[in-house]
Amino acid sequence: MPIRLYELVTTDARALSPFVWRIKYALAHKGLDFETVPVGFTEIPKLCGSRYKTVPIIEDGETTVCDSWAIADYLDEAYPDRPKLFSSPQERAMIRFFDSWFGLEIMNRMFSINVLDIHNHAREEDQPYFRKSREARLGGKTLEQFINGREARLPELNHALRPMRAALAASPFLGGHKPNYADYIALGGFLWTSAICTMPLLASDDKLNDWLERGFSLYDNLGKVAGYPLSA
Amino acid sequence: MPIRLYELVTTDARALSPFVWRIKYALAHKGLDFETVPVGFTEIPKLCGSRYKTVPIIEDGETTVCDSWAIADYLDEAYPDRPKLFSSPQERAMIRFFDSWFGLEIMNRMFSINVLDIHNHAREEDQPYFRKSREARLGGKTLEQFINGREARLPELNHALRPMRAALAASPFLGGHKPNYADYIALGGFLWTSAICTMPLLASDDKLNDWLERGFSLYDNLGKVAGYPLSA
Repeated sequence: MPIRLYELVTTDARALSPFVWRIKYALAHKGLDFETVPVGFTEIPKLCGSRYKTVPIIEDGETTVCDSWAIADYLDEAYPDRPKLFSSPQERAMIRFFDSWFGLEIMNRMFSINVLDIHNHAREEDQPYFRKSREARLGGKTLEQFINGREARLPELNHALRPMRAALAASPFLGGHKPNYADYIALGGFLWTSAICTMPLLASDDKLNDWLERGFSLYDNLGKVAGYPLSA
Repeated sequence: MPIRLYELVTTDARALSPFVWRIKYALAHKGLDFETVPVGFTEIPKLCGSRYKTVPIIEDGETTVCDSWAIADYLDEAYPDRPKLFSSPQERAMIRFFDSWFGLEIMNRMFSINVLDIHNHAREEDQPYFRKSREARLGGKTLEQFINGREARLPELNHALRPMRAALAASPFLGGHKPNYADYIALGGFLWTSAICTMPLLASDDKLNDWLERGFSLYDNLGKVAGYPLSA
């Protein structure tokens, strides 16, 4: 029986969670069959006996796991003979650092550019919840006010991406010769934005486009479902 | 015969290279005996038949290796039965990312705070070389002009350190339960500055002080030689 993965989607069924994307890649990395169940923001708290508030959630037979890190650890434990997501505790610790960096320096900046686009692509019944919960984090600003002048944030985002460019100048993936969970974290962030963002994030000659192309092509073009160009 | 490590020092014999510090920790991690040879900036090009321009340089019997990454790789290759610096190619790739991040976001900011202090602690015969080579990177500014207003750079440095704080909230070392080469890279940066900087970088209640204390205490207090407090 394939693993079931609950996945947040837009009105037109585009995958809309960077954290779900990580797990799609993780499942593909391990060669595990999975099926996705599309849900909207306000459906999540009703899933699995109302135990969870966020996706990804997986159901694997009798086992239910929520949270991308918990799922990644579960997959390595439950399927030790499949390709490992974490080659060693040390690699895992370094990917935790990468995740902290990517969240604080990159995803936060992406959010400040794409949050109104996410709202506009959410299912109509989810939009009021999305607006209310996100505006609560914006110090009294509306989504519209928050993204006002977002073009000026692109140089800062591009500046913040320098460490990734430097690492990817030395190897095709963040994980080295082969992709690892850090690649999946970062690809998930770009896929999140590419699914809905109305403003390109990268210049067309940005070297990161080569890595995105490699990453979106992995596992039978897993990331090309979104199919939206990221570069200007 | 112990490995010989050429090490850049101040007038009062304080270790002055973040890259040499990494290798001191790497040698200690592998349990290898080593002796240090103190040198000044202008002596480096005369060492080892004038083959190199930077430290660290190690001499291990007939083998001479320059550059901290080349040395780290050499140590794992030459001493495979000792504790590994890199548990897997994936961990090594992630530490390369960490090194890029730490160089671009942290060491560059430390440099903008400590560069005149380095000059003032360099051997007298090295000071003209140091000033000339560093000022060439500063777009026409003198060292004094460059560090003018450096207090205002502390908040930015502290902001940039957030990903390290986040990772170290989850585990005692960047490498997880035990220190890895990423810890040595970061400890080297702080030791570099602590040896000479006349301005504390961290607030006394910064959680990074706990990690610094753990890191400086490793391997019989290897990092406590410098012995200069970093926090206000």
